[in-house]
Amino acid sequence: MTSRPPLTRALGAHAVGTRYDALPPAVQQEAARALLNWVGVVLGGCDEDAVVRAAAFVAARGGPPQAAVIGRGLRTDPASAALVNTIASSVLAFDDAHLPSVAHPSGPAAAAVFALAQSRRVSGADLLTALALGIELQCRIANALVLPPAPLHPSFYVTGVSGPIGVAAAAGRLLGLDEQRMRWALGLAASMGAGFRATHGTMTAHFRPGHAAQCGVAAALLAEQGFDCTDDALEAPGGFFDVYASGSDLGAPLVELGTHHEMLANRYKPYPCGIVIHPVIDACQAIRARLPAGASIARIELAVHPLVLSMTAKRAPRSALESHVSVYHWAAVALLSDAPGLEATELASLADPRVMALRDRIDAGARAEFGKDEAAVSVTLADGTRLEAHVTEPRGSRARPLSDAELDQKFFALAARRLSRATAERVLAACRGIALAPDAGRALGELLP
Amino acid sequence: MTSRPPLTRALGAHAVGTRYDALPPAVQQEAARALLNWVGVVLGGCDEDAVVRAAAFVAARGGPPQAAVIGRGLRTDPASAALVNTIASSVLAFDDAHLPSVAHPSGPAAAAVFALAQSRRVSGADLLTALALGIELQCRIANALVLPPAPLHPSFYVTGVSGPIGVAAAAGRLLGLDEQRMRWALGLAASMGAGFRATHGTMTAHFRPGHAAQCGVAAALLAEQGFDCTDDALEAPGGFFDVYASGSDLGAPLVELGTHHEMLANRYKPYPCGIVIHPVIDACQAIRARLPAGASIARIELAVHPLVLSMTAKRAPRSALESHVSVYHWAAVALLSDAPGLEATELASLADPRVMALRDRIDAGARAEFGKDEAAVSVTLADGTRLEAHVTEPRGSRARPLSDAELDQKFFALAARRLSRATAERVLAACRGIALAPDAGRALGELLP
Repeated sequence: MTSRPPLTRALGAHAVGTRYDALPPAVQQEAARALLNWVGVVLGGCDEDAVVRAAAFVAARGGPPQAAVIGRGLRTDPASAALVNTIASSVLAFDDAHLPSVAHPSGPAAAAVFALAQSRRVSGADLLTALALGIELQCRIANALVLPPAPLHPSFYVTGVSGPIGVAAAAGRLLGLDEQRMRWALGLAASMGAGFRATHGTMTAHFRPGHAAQCGVAAALLAEQGFDCTDDALEAPGGFFDVYASGSDLGAPLVELGTHHEMLANRYKPYPCGIVIHPVIDACQAIRARLPAGASIARIELAVHPLVLSMTAKRAPRSALESHVSVYHWAAVALLSDAPGLEATELASLADPRVMALRDRIDAGARAEFGKDEAAVSVTLADGTRLEAHVTEPRGSRARPLSDAELDQKFFALAARRLSRATAERVLAACRGIALAPDAGRALGELLP
Repeated sequence: MTSRPPLTRALGAHAVGTRYDALPPAVQQEAARALLNWVGVVLGGCDEDAVVRAAAFVAARGGPPQAAVIGRGLRTDPASAALVNTIASSVLAFDDAHLPSVAHPSGPAAAAVFALAQSRRVSGADLLTALALGIELQCRIANALVLPPAPLHPSFYVTGVSGPIGVAAAAGRLLGLDEQRMRWALGLAASMGAGFRATHGTMTAHFRPGHAAQCGVAAALLAEQGFDCTDDALEAPGGFFDVYASGSDLGAPLVELGTHHEMLANRYKPYPCGIVIHPVIDACQAIRARLPAGASIARIELAVHPLVLSMTAKRAPRSALESHVSVYHWAAVALLSDAPGLEATELASLADPRVMALRDRIDAGARAEFGKDEAAVSVTLADGTRLEAHVTEPRGSRARPLSDAELDQKFFALAARRLSRATAERVLAACRGIALAPDAGRALGELLP
């Protein structure tokens, strides 16, 4: 780290200066798509146990009724609402993912801007600007943390580490922080980055993006009060990058800032499980399409990116939360059913004897040369027939993003858990048209439960 | 890490099972001394700018009036009160320090138990038990993080990383969590450990112990709601110790747990600045006592532990917050005045031409072989005379702890900023007699502003 670019200043200036009209249409549209996907997964997740319990914690904590905890009949302070709404968006593992960093940036950013947009009047264009900014900065910070030359310990949960910074930028933008206060917000947020992967499969895994959201909002609100920090917390010796990924490329987050939009690499999940499992699912689905009627599967071999085994090697998941991190379960399900969805995370599927039998016949091996989007599956039938599939561009990947129609379909399926079709259509229309709303928090908030 | 002791389970069981009557009298007394010292530094710090701003943030966040933000005329939820009261106890850099780990454990723990003791009825004996437990676990976790074989990056702020775990144990003990929920609380808290040293000298440095306090309280309250985690978050592969200090001795925190009391190594500061500066102050005071009348100091050489230069090398502090991390300033002040105290952190001292002139004549060098309690100072006078002092047991160190009388004196000096002498005496009596109080939150709370 011989060169120390003024990362905190530059990101702060960018955050303060970002304007909706200066964003390319693709970024404007992607921000609206991220919002729609987020509202859908929140509606789908808001009755889950983790959300109910987190909402009870927040209700006891109190807070003025400024921002809705969606689906829980509760209004509270923006940071607390952002906490619970992010847990709701995360808890089905159906949200989004930025594959280069394996971060999930839109949940914390959307929860933060939605919460603040209810506590003060925010136009839809400003909300989308802040949301795009929050996702963009999370992706950039996360890339710099996890990519060479000096990667973060792979068991740090990158959304928890990078999330507060992006959220603080988004929140600070909506609060109208000046550049000085924005730098303080970024530094305060960086000092709260945290989280590790060992608790995946429990509610705590979903607390972490929620905590990133509330910490980012709190950082911006503290900076607004004049609570100060240094001007170089991200890049200083002994600062954020130094302690988490010493020797990392401090210039990386600034490369083509404002012209290259890393948030366009963020994707919405077609399957409710860890993103690194998705190519395996597609390969299994391709093989399923070629399975002879009545075929008996003797053996399944998975060749996968090393992260798949370090993150999702749970052989026999016992809960929906554990199913999110079981490549074995999803491979079995994807060989047994078409277009597997949320039903695959339910106990009936986890304890299905056909699924369990297939899970036990799977061998998975890591391939260092594979990309994160890549998987090869080989199925051997009882009669010796071998069926193979090799996937490099899974559904939802950058090469095959969910279309608007697919995203609408995903939204309606999730929203149906809580809303009538008529209301769901109004919510969808509100999200798609949010750029024109003079009061975005109201336009969306009054339609949601 | 070939051996993985069940750290989370063992610490959780210990936390649940700790009883006041089973604590040695020395531990019982030290917990009461920690409480008294904490109340004093909170009273001294509660009008500082960082506290006023943090209190404004908390006031806007709302929260039911359950716990006092001392000196700010505000009652709020326990986690938020713990945040601000810890900032108040930290902001003068006059609180406490556990030298082996350079952690400051009593602030977050005391703020947490005091806040919870107001939101539900807690006996004084239980409050002291929880406080002792919270300090003990912080010291043990911090030691395992910073000592060989696998030390934490030295720029992580250890109180921020280890603090939430100890606080969660203390808070969980007061909430009466069972062992299962206590394990979840410890895991949730561990997932919030964070903070780095690059922002020392700003308000954010004091936000970090406050954040540790609020995170620990939140972890216990979430676990109380049944928000779950794994049972091995501290020691699991990909867990707390693995990501922060991979290869650390996971058995260390359990050695002689319940019989050896590391919290007795915690100390109360006699000087309002970084603990590693203290031996330099004592050495300079010893030389000052031998300075000839009218002597002119030409040159000052400091030989110090390496941490002194990595943590406190600010040559020309511009604010009270920066003075805490300036060994140069304190060396100069300690050569110019007897028993330097809070006045040395004020602008009049920072800009005093005599102090500034001396600061510029100081050379400081690190000595790898020195202990953290050690410093050697050599002063050369204009006439060539050399005066030297070598300190290995500074005031307040384990060999020379502040006596009860010295602690009382420190308390009264700090309390005088906010309380009449008569009220201060009642507060002191309440702290000294807290073990017998049937309702500790009330006994103390109703005396404080």
